[in-house]
This record gives sequence, structure tokens and C-alpha cells, in this order.
Amino acid sequence: MFITANFDSGNIDVIRAEDATDIELQIRRDNQSDFYQWFHFKLYGEVGTEHVMRITNAGESAYPDGWKEYSALASYDRETWFRVPTQFDGKTLTIAYTPEQESVYFAYFVPYSYERHQDLIQWAQQSSLVEHVFLGPTLDGRDMNLLVIGEPDDSKRKIWVTARQHPGESMAEWFIEGMLGRLLDDEDGAARKLLQNNVFYVVPNMNPDGSVRGHLRTNAVGTNLNREWAEPTLEKSPEVYYVLKAMDETGVDLYLDIHGDENLPYNFLAGCEGVPCYNERHDKLAQQFKDTLLAITPEFQTEFGYEVDKPGEANLTVASNAVSERFDCLAFTLEMPFKDNANLPDEDFGWSANRSAQLGADVLSAVYAVANNLRD
Amino acid sequence: MFITANFDSGNIDVIRAEDATDIELQIRRDNQSDFYQWFHFKLYGEVGTEHVMRITNAGESAYPDGWKEYSALASYDRETWFRVPTQFDGKTLTIAYTPEQESVYFAYFVPYSYERHQDLIQWAQQSSLVEHVFLGPTLDGRDMNLLVIGEPDDSKRKIWVTARQHPGESMAEWFIEGMLGRLLDDEDGAARKLLQNNVFYVVPNMNPDGSVRGHLRTNAVGTNLNREWAEPTLEKSPEVYYVLKAMDETGVDLYLDIHGDENLPYNFLAGCEGVPCYNERHDKLAQQFKDTLLAITPEFQTEFGYEVDKPGEANLTVASNAVSERFDCLAFTLEMPFKDNANLPDEDFGWSANRSAQLGADVLSAVYAVANNLRD
Amino acid sequence: MFITANFDSGNIDVIRAEDATDIELQIRRDNQSDFYQWFHFKLYGEVGTEHVMRITNAGESAYPDGWKEYSALASYDRETWFRVPTQFDGKTLTIAYTPEQESVYFAYFVPYSYERHQDLIQWAQQSSLVEHVFLGPTLDGRDMNLLVIGEPDDSKRKIWVTARQHPGESMAEWFIEGMLGRLLDDEDGAARKLLQNNVFYVVPNMNPDGSVRGHLRTNAVGTNLNREWAEPTLEKSPEVYYVLKAMDETGVDLYLDIHGDENLPYNFLAGCEGVPCYNERHDKLAQQFKDTLLAITPEFQTEFGYEVDKPGEANLTVASNAVSERFDCLAFTLEMPFKDNANLPDEDFGWSANRSAQLGADVLSAVYAVANNLRD
Amino acid sequence: MFITANFDSGNIDVIRAEDATDIELQIRRDNQSDFYQWFHFKLYGEVGTEHVMRITNAGESAYPDGWKEYSALASYDRETWFRVPTQFDGKTLTIAYTPEQESVYFAYFVPYSYERHQDLIQWAQQSSLVEHVFLGPTLDGRDMNLLVIGEPDDSKRKIWVTARQHPGESMAEWFIEGMLGRLLDDEDGAARKLLQNNVFYVVPNMNPDGSVRGHLRTNAVGTNLNREWAEPTLEKSPEVYYVLKAMDETGVDLYLDIHGDENLPYNFLAGCEGVPCYNERHDKLAQQFKDTLLAITPEFQTEFGYEVDKPGEANLTVASNAVSERFDCLAFTLEMPFKDNANLPDEDFGWSANRSAQLGADVLSAVYAVANNLRD
Ligand SMILES: [Ca+2]
Ligand SMILES: [Ca+2]
Ligand SMILES: [Ca+2]
Ligand SMILES: [Ca+2]
Repeated sequence: MFITANFDSGNIDVIRAEDATDIELQIRRDNQSDFYQWFHFKLYGEVGTEHVMRITNAGESAYPDGWKEYSALASYDRETWFRVPTQFDGKTLTIAYTPEQESVYFAYFVPYSYERHQDLIQWAQQSSLVEHVFLGPTLDGRDMNLLVIGEPDDSKRKIWVTARQHPGESMAEWFIEGMLGRLLDDEDGAARKLLQNNVFYVVPNMNPDGSVRGHLRTNAVGTNLNREWAEPTLEKSPEVYYVLKAMDETGVDLYLDIHGDENLPYNFLAGCEGVPCYNERHDKLAQQFKDTLLAITPEFQTEFGYEVDKPGEANLTVASNAVSERFDCLAFTLEMPFKDNANLPDEDFGWSANRSAQLGADVLSAVYAVANNLRD
Repeated sequence: MFITANFDSGNIDVIRAEDATDIELQIRRDNQSDFYQWFHFKLYGEVGTEHVMRITNAGESAYPDGWKEYSALASYDRETWFRVPTQFDGKTLTIAYTPEQESVYFAYFVPYSYERHQDLIQWAQQSSLVEHVFLGPTLDGRDMNLLVIGEPDDSKRKIWVTARQHPGESMAEWFIEGMLGRLLDDEDGAARKLLQNNVFYVVPNMNPDGSVRGHLRTNAVGTNLNREWAEPTLEKSPEVYYVLKAMDETGVDLYLDIHGDENLPYNFLAGCEGVPCYNERHDKLAQQFKDTLLAITPEFQTEFGYEVDKPGEANLTVASNAVSERFDCLAFTLEMPFKDNANLPDEDFGWSANRSAQLGADVLSAVYAVANNLRD
Repeated sequence: MFITANFDSGNIDVIRAEDATDIELQIRRDNQSDFYQWFHFKLYGEVGTEHVMRITNAGESAYPDGWKEYSALASYDRETWFRVPTQFDGKTLTIAYTPEQESVYFAYFVPYSYERHQDLIQWAQQSSLVEHVFLGPTLDGRDMNLLVIGEPDDSKRKIWVTARQHPGESMAEWFIEGMLGRLLDDEDGAARKLLQNNVFYVVPNMNPDGSVRGHLRTNAVGTNLNREWAEPTLEKSPEVYYVLKAMDETGVDLYLDIHGDENLPYNFLAGCEGVPCYNERHDKLAQQFKDTLLAITPEFQTEFGYEVDKPGEANLTVASNAVSERFDCLAFTLEMPFKDNANLPDEDFGWSANRSAQLGADVLSAVYAVANNLRD
Repeated sequence: MFITANFDSGNIDVIRAEDATDIELQIRRDNQSDFYQWFHFKLYGEVGTEHVMRITNAGESAYPDGWKEYSALASYDRETWFRVPTQFDGKTLTIAYTPEQESVYFAYFVPYSYERHQDLIQWAQQSSLVEHVFLGPTLDGRDMNLLVIGEPDDSKRKIWVTARQHPGESMAEWFIEGMLGRLLDDEDGAARKLLQNNVFYVVPNMNPDGSVRGHLRTNAVGTNLNREWAEPTLEKSPEVYYVLKAMDETGVDLYLDIHGDENLPYNFLAGCEGVPCYNERHDKLAQQFKDTLLAITPEFQTEFGYEVDKPGEANLTVASNAVSERFDCLAFTLEMPFKDNANLPDEDFGWSANRSAQLGADVLSAVYAVANNLRD
């Protein structure tokens, strides 16, 4: 038996792995941080023998409620990820699985590797619709990528989309892949029409360092980027610093920040009702956006979500709030589940990479519906 | 130089083809009918030499206005079909093209072959969601295929979709391919939700004989199937006879009949305002269906289309009218252009196979929006 | 229940098909000919019920021994073709099969459709290495295709390959597909080297009319093309007439004519030992060709095959003999089995499309080995 | 402008990168070692501007002659890698390139990433022919993978293949991918036949740590694994230790160790003429192996290569020699070029990933030719 996490976005510490019935594991903390919840490892076990893997520090992770009703993901081929029996007793997360092949991967959610990220960027770059902009280096020396889609022009609306500030929320980059696939499809009518009057600015991965390191929530030095939008610094949060600077140069008419939520088994939008500038215009646009999405997909709903901020009480260090206020624009945090969409559950796979990508494509329909009204 | 149409859905008569500057062609009539407009042939020419192909009986074809502002399609690889310079002087359609390779295909619209049709049926059949039903033989001895999608159940709504009554309207089967691709995608939320409460009955090709024969509008014996829905017969219109019989067995809550229109450069829906049973319920559903489609894609519009029938004046031999009246249900004829969508023109490709397929997928969003209200 | 063969290369007559336990079928004769053996049809049956299909004229077909130890092919998706239980009692061929899906295709061997043929030609044409030449029309008005691969040059050797004179031997075109795939692969070393010093002239399908018609052995008017090479005529055998004329223009240094053999469960080469010009040079080349193939693949063998012609006793109406004599060149008829390679049997699939294609690629290794010696 | 190598197998130090005409770079040494030559980095530059990148420590790299007549590889999409203008003056390697897109990757040879490695292993594992064996951990905590292909049985010959002891020789793993693709193809005759009488033991990557780290020649602690086969240790060379232990358990009848050679523009085999046990049997087998390869591909040759060891003078710390002596078996080091095959040059791509893979497939033909004689 052998367990390793020494690969892209790997995260596990092996406490004990001699006996298949008694494997003890712990999730590593994000570097310079107390956050942890993301795991990703490979097990070499005995085919046909049940392996009981106990993650004994699950109860003190960032979101202990995230383990309730949660099932871990497993894969043999690293492409099809299925749910496996998982229990949580308040302290320990126990995954019990009988492998059918010699090695099997486990993860908190379907990983989106840095290799795939680079392939995505280079693929997009090749489109004549895209300009690939280097924003600046991360603290680990990686490159922050911005994709500018459509011919920039002052008269056009600027639509910004960022994803994966929290690197363990890998569904956010699957979402972007689905959205880009549609946006760059030159036979998709809505995409073509959108690009006549809008320019998209997409940052597929706000936190490459955290992604490669197998972090849940922070960058290379333990910063939660989604609390840095009031005053980002090159020392602690260069990722936000560069993006905000680029936003200042282009302006923003609509902003979507793509996330995953550990607890709620639903897709939902968190709006900016609490920012000082929020007004009826914002509210009407937000409503139209949500109504369109509601009309076309059961993957979206408005019943469950975060509590709505009271007027003026928004946390302005959070990306969507900060951007909404700074540019007086419609902005949302979009949250997808780690678990499943309880309105349309899938026992075998739960919420998945493909469903995330489909939602990314479908969200363009909502963007299409509001785009002409964004500056009204 | 050589021109042949001896292949699936081929249609051309060569009058003269010795001189590249003076090629005369004529379109063959549908068997036992005067309709003609569909053409599909292959040219072996001189690479680098302009070939002027004159279809001299274009002016007397079924829809002479169809040739105005029309550009013919060409392909080297039979996958990418692009538009080539085409002129119509009221009598003759002239295609002038300089081939870059030794052989090149030309067609009225992107062909959808009978081989591909069979592949589509067999592919769909493999889904655990699908039952493949043989409806009966055509007059040429081909098999009429019905795909039943979803677990039949009396409480569920029955949604019927038929395509290509007029075999030359090949975009109708591309549309079906796009719709089926989405409907059988087990990670598409709207499709999964739809199949919980609805059963789809899809006939991807109502007229296989006409399709293989290279007809525009009729079946093997020259019958225009879309005028047979009042009293179909096994002698003249078995295709309609079998489908209507199957509809009687299942009932119908929504019916879409997919077509192409030779003249109008738009996608549009023709409703059943003229059928006796048409009422406010129908109208409200029709409105909701159109509004959803309008909201999500610029490929649809409601400004241009057929004149709306006056109350009680519908032609009840036409499929959508006949079915709407017989089952008191929402029904539409959906029309796609042979030319382009003038609201979102594409100079290189015009209206295409992929755009037809995308519309087929998008229409499911409109079905999703109205499905719960169909029996209200 | 319904059985139809009304599609590309379909062939069956239904005598009786009411009762799954007692289905009687007959194979249709080639047009204007007594040959028959190829069958290809689709059954709509009852899932889970055994269907006993008796082909009652099998005993008088062209090669009754071909039915011994033979298993018919079946497919649900028209891509994967597997063997099904088949018996022959000297008179009747009985296929007994319990379908797992509503419709299933049966065939004598994996069909190679005319649509696929056209795709193959157009795909090859796009290569900068290929010139696509129209040779002349068939009697049904189809086009005879010649692919010239490599830059023609007098100093280069001319290698001719023809396939499917006998249209029911569809493995011959799968072989060509494999060979072309390798020959046009610009990173395959042997292919690149071969094209420096040789030009290939490939006719992927010598008999398109017979192929579409579902014939075993003859063209549209019942001519066995492989007995026409002494004096082909435009009336009876234009296919051979055009190819021989083209050969006269280019010369021939090596000729391979690709076939299937109904009886022998082996791949083998039939040489031209009986042609007047046959000499030691021919023999040495033939030996080297065979030795190379023997060395690299167990799919080839030299133990079983046709009896070798005595000196001077070759039938000079047969393609390989005629061409060998006319051009004083190495020539072979290459035969593949309908059944299996008994030296390497595969119970599930028998001899297959992919194995035919692999042999087509492997034969290039043998060509590579002899190419430099062809004019010695 | 920005240059980064912070990704899988990245290697470059940026000395100066402000001015496109004067970019200075240096290759990093392998950890705890003086070896260096592998580079792999990404440039964000100005589209349309020539970038002159000078690697100023090239002259003191492990194989300065490797830079002569060498052209660096570049890629936009990380799939197609093409050669770019490169000069070497004895000290500095200068790559001058005008990017057509915003970011472009450069590498010493086509990279084979650790993600792809993991995909390869998991893909192979799924075959019913394969057992995936964990051999032991590397010093960085990665897993050493062994693929056992075919049903083990004492009577069968054991064929061992290892690749990429030197991690910068990435062509070695492309070679393995091609070989495995063929070996696991259940319709490839030679592969099927081979697996009836032989078992393959394949280690696709002997040095995963060095590969990820962007090393040229050594593992995580600077050990040249191909000098460790006399006495491997868990401290310095666990990779060799585990493989040799596994070889001792199975025995070895044929061993191929796959490498790249920095200097020679040819593919060649280095035999074990200098090992004490070398005898006529070895020599005859070696000859047959080479003759088969020579006969079928111009990518192999025997004119250029390493000097042959004199009897008894072999370096027994080298894998092929050590294994040949220990198991009295045929063994080769197979070398592929970083540059090109000068016998069949390709100006645009040089020696490539696909050509490496094809050679891996072709080598199986040589194995097939000798396999039955290995124990004679
Ligand atoms: Ca989050
Ligand atoms: Ca119509
Ligand atoms: Ca034959
Ligand atoms: Ca080496």
C-alpha cells in the first residue's frame, strides 16, 4: 500500500497506511495559513479489498459543515470522477472504498490541473477573437493570465469574469472552460452577438500558486485573495493588485466572480445589495439576470444562498462588492456546490466538471439577456 | 471535366460540361412531381480555373425567390461547407467558382446523408433513455424511425418533434442532431429535468425516400407530406400515416415540426392561430415559448415570418395545424433559412449545419420554460 | 419485426419474417449475373428474444465452402462489428441471435460505405502529396477515382495498388484506408522515404457500382472485372479499361491488387509465377517481399494459399497476371479472409476492419524493403 | 516582456529580459549536480518583434557539441512543437524568434509532462492485459510505476523496457507511449502474438523527480541513474534499486533502455559487446534485431553510434551492460536524437514526439522477429 500526493494540487499527509482497514490521513494546511479542506491523493491498494481511509483532522477544517452529506470523488483514469461512500462524524471524514484497479485517485472535487490551465490559455490565445495579456507575476513566479475577448472599443460594455480566487474551488475553472468554449465558438449566435457590443475580460485562474500547491483558500503566502479588494498589495496579494489595476484601465460594466461553496448543495448568486451605490438599476438588472437563468436551467435557483447584506453593510474587501462599488456596476459572486445540486441530484457523480462547464455556457445566456441594459 | 450526382441525395442533370466557362446544368424534378430546387453534385474541374455553372431551369423551380440573395454551398471535405459566389437573373442561377482542389461538391444546403441518419438512430438507440421504435416501411422499403426518449408514463407530457417532411430541408435534421445531443447528455440539467416529467417522441427524418433520392419536397411517389395530415394513406403518405397513428396512441402536449424556408433569411415559428381550437391558453404558451427563445438567442426573431392565419382559416392538412387541432395542444412549424440569418449574417458560411444544431439545442430551453404549463 | 436492406450495399430478400423462430431470407444475385454471397441487412426484432434467420439459398452461392466455419457479423452502432453464432448445413446458413437493442445490422463482412469512400477520397485529396485524378465514369455514372501520391518523375518507380474489383470484398478498402493513413502520415519514416523515390497510384475502389448495389463480385452489368484485364471494354468493364489506360501512361514497377477470399482463413499472396515473363528477378523480389512481411506480422503466412500456376499457364485476364506480363513487373493478388486468421484467431471479432487496415499499413514495410530493387 | 519556467519540467534563469534584442538566460544545474542542458520556458513578448534570447552558459553545459547544428523547439499550443532559428558560437546559444502570438513556449525537446505520465499509467492500467505495480517511492515521494503486460508465466520470456533514466531525454517517454499504444492494441497482430509467449515489464519513466524538476540527467539528489546499476542504493538511487530488485524476481530475456543522445543526429543502438558474458548467441540476436529494424524503417541505421566496447571492457554500472551480464541476455541502449535524423531530415520539426512514438511501435517489430530465439 502506498499513498502519495506529490503531484499537481496534491494534498494529504499520511499518518498511517499499513493496514487497509485502518488508514489515517490528515489534510495539510494552506501555506502560512490555518485554512484547509482540499485534498487530492493517489492510493495504491489491493484490488478487491475495502480500504478505510480516515481523515482525522476533518472536524477542524475551514468548513466542517462541508463534510455533512458530502461524498468524496474518485477516479481511475483522471477523467471520470465518481462519488464514493463517505461518512462524517463531526471529527473524522471516513472514505471507504474497494478499488477495482491497482491505483485510484481521490479528491475533494474534480481537479483542474495547472497543465490544463496552460493548455486552456494557449488554446484561447489562438483565437483571432482573443488577446492574451500578461498581468504580472505571482509570488511563486507564475504568470497571471488575462484573456481579452472581442475587439476593445470605448463604446462597448466591459464584462469581467474572474475565477478561482480560492484555489480549492476547482469547479470555478471548469465553469470558465465551458464559458470560453461557447464564447469562442464562431457559430454560437449568442456569443457572436455579445461580442459585437461587449468585450470580455476573463481571468481563468486568479490563484495559480494556491492551485498548484493544493491549497483550499489562499495564495502562496496564505492570503485569502477575496478579502484583499479594498487594498491589494504586491507583497501579499499581487494577483488582486494586477487585476484591479487592469479593471481601472478598462472600466467594468458587469462582473462575475466564480466560486464554489463548501456547504450549500445548490448553485446560487450572491449579489451586492450591501454596497453603498446599490440602487434600483442594479436591482432590476440583477433580477433580469437571475430570471433568465432560472428560466433555462434547473441547475440554478434563488431559494438557497447567502444572507443578503443590509444596505451599506457590504464587506468591501470582497471582490464582487468592491468592484460593484468602484465601477457602479452589476456584480455577482457565483457559487457552485462541492456536493450536488439538491434540486437535481445525481447519485453517481454529484456536481461535476461537465455540469460546471455547462453552467458556464448557460450563464452567457443570462449575460446576453442583460447586456444591452447594463449602462441604462 | 466531369460532373456527377450519383450519390446520396445527389441531384443534377448535366446539359453541357465541356468548357469550364460554359457549363449548363438543370435540377431534376422530384419523382412524380413538379417540385424541384434541391441540388447536390460533384465537379471534377481544373484547379485554378474559374468554372461557370449555369442552372438554367432555376427560374421555374418551386421557389424562384429562394434564389435571390442566395449563395450556393461548396465543400472539399464534405464537412466544411462554405458559400460561393452565386447570381440569379430571374431565370438562371449562376455559380462561378475557381476550385483549389481537383474535386469539389456543391449543394443547395449542407447535406445530411442517409448513412449519417442511420448512425444517428443507432447512436441514440444505445442510450438507456431511448427506445427505438420501427413505425412502418416507406414506399421505397426504408424504415420509419421513432425515438422515444424518457420513461413513458401517462402522467408525463408528450412532446413530439418531427423533421424533414420536406427532404431538401436538410437543416431540419441537423437541428434534430443538436437537439438529441443535448437531450441525451446526462449532465445537461435542463434535459435531465425535462425527462423527469416529459417524454419526447422524435422522428429525425419523416421522408427518408425523398432524402436519398435528392428530392426537394416530396416522397418517393411525389407526395408533399405536409399536406397529408388530414387523411394520410398507406398508398401515398405512409410516413404521415404511421406517425399520426403513433401520436394517437400517446397523445400530444407539444408538437414541433422542423423545416427550412427557401425565401426568408430568418429563423421563425409559424403557429396555429387559425385552427378551430386555438385559444388564450395556446396563445399564452406560444408567447412564453417565443419569449424564452428571443431572450437567449439572436438566431431567433418574431418580426419576419409567415402571415398569421385568421381564426378558423388554418389549413388542416398541414402537420402543425392538424396536430394542434387533433390534440388541442401547442404546435409550431419551425423554419430555418437556406440563406442566412440576416440579423446575424456570416459572409463565409451563412446559415450552417452547426447553427442549425445549436438552435435545436436552444429550442430545448424554450421547451423547458413552457413544459410545466402545457396542460394548464 | 421488420427486415430491410434498402441502404448502401444492402442485400437481402425477405421470404418470411413474421415469427422470430422462423425467418427465411435469400441473398440476391448480382445484377445480370449468377454470383451472390454478400449480404447486408437490418433487423428490427424483439429485445431479448432469439431470432433464427435462415438464408436458404446459401448452398448455391458462389462459394459454398465460404460458409463453413464462418460466423456472420453484427453491429448495433455500425462501427463495432462482432461475430454471431452461425451454422451451415450445406444448404442453409443459419444465424441465431438474441438482440440486446431494438435494431441490429448484419453483414457478410464489415461494410465500407460509398459515403466513407467519398470521405476517404476527399480527405486524401487535401494532402499536398496527392493528386486526385478522375479516370472516367462507371456504367451507373459514378466516378472512378485515382490517387497519385508523390511527385511524379520518370526516374521514380511506379507502384500501383487497386482494391475491391470484387465489391463484396470490403476488407480490401479497409486495407487501403490503413495504407493511405500511413502513406500520408508526414511523420512516418518509411512512408516519407518511399515517396522520395516512388510514386503510388492507388485506386481505393475499382467497383463503386457493385459496392453500392450490394454485389459480391461484379459491376453494374454483371461483369467480373478480374477477368477483364486482357481486353477491357467501355461497354462491359470501363473500370478496368480506364485503369489499364492510366497504367500504360505511367508504367508499373510493382502492382498489388487487394482482395478477400471467401474460403481460406488466412492472409496470403498469390504471385504471377505462371506469366510468360516471370523470371528469377521476379522470384527474388517476391521472396523478399514475403520474407519482410513474414518477419514483422503473424497476420501473414505462406503455407496456405492458391495453387501456384505452372510456368506459362497463368490466366492473363486476371489483373495481377496481366499487369505483371504487360509491364514485366512484380505483381501480387493479396487475399484477406472473410473468416479469421486461423494462426491468430479472435473469437469475438474474427478478421476485422482494423486488422485489414493494419495489414495495409504493414504491407508498406514490405514495399519499403523491395522498392530499391524493383528495377534491378 | 516576461519569462517564466515555473511549471512542470521548467528550467531557465532569467539574467536580463527588458529588451527584446538583448535577453540573457542561463540554464539551471540539476540539483546537487553539475549537469545541465535541458531548458523549458515561456516567453511573453511582443507579437511581430524579433526576440533574441541568448543562453550564455550553453558552452559549459554537459554536452556542448549538442548545440552544434541544433535548433530549439517552440510551441504556441503545447502540442505542435516546431524548430526555430538557433545559433551556437561555442559559448552562447542564441535563439532568435519573432512571436506570432502573445506567449510562446521554448524547450530543448518536446516536453512530456508528469500529468501526461500519470494519464499514460492510468490509461494502461485499465487494460485487462496490464497489471500496474508500485515499485517504491522516489526521494521526492513520487511513485515508481511498473506496467506488467501479459499474463506472467515461467515459460514466457521476460522483456524489460525502461525509459528516461535521464529525465531531459523526454523523447524516451514519447517512444514508450508509441510502444504501449501498439502493445495494448488488441487488433495488432504482432502485439497479440508477442503477448502469447512473452511478458513485457515497462517502466515508462525511471526518473519522475528529475523530470518534474526540469533536470537533464540526474534524480532529485543529483545521481546519474545510468551509473548506478552495479550497486544501487535507497539513499542515492532508489529508482534503480527497485527496478533491479523486480528484475531479479522475474528474470530478463531482453532489455531495452531508452535514451536520447545530445550529439548524434541519428537513431542507433548501443549493444553490450563489452560485457563478460557476451557471446555468439548475443551477437546473432543483436544482428537479427538490427536487421529487422533496418529493413522496415529509415529512421534506424547502424553506421553512426557509440564506439563499441572491447571484450570485457564494458562499464557495468550502465543499465544495459549490467542487465545483460546479470541475466545473460540481449540488451540494448536505444538512442534517439535531440536534433534530427540526418538520413531523413525534416526542416520544420526535426526529430519529433510522433517520430519517437512511431519508432517505439516499430521496435516491437524487431522484438517480434527475435522473440522466439531469445532463449536459444
Ligand atoms: Ca469561495
Ligand atoms: Ca418546408
Ligand atoms: Ca476476390
Ligand atoms: Ca542518455
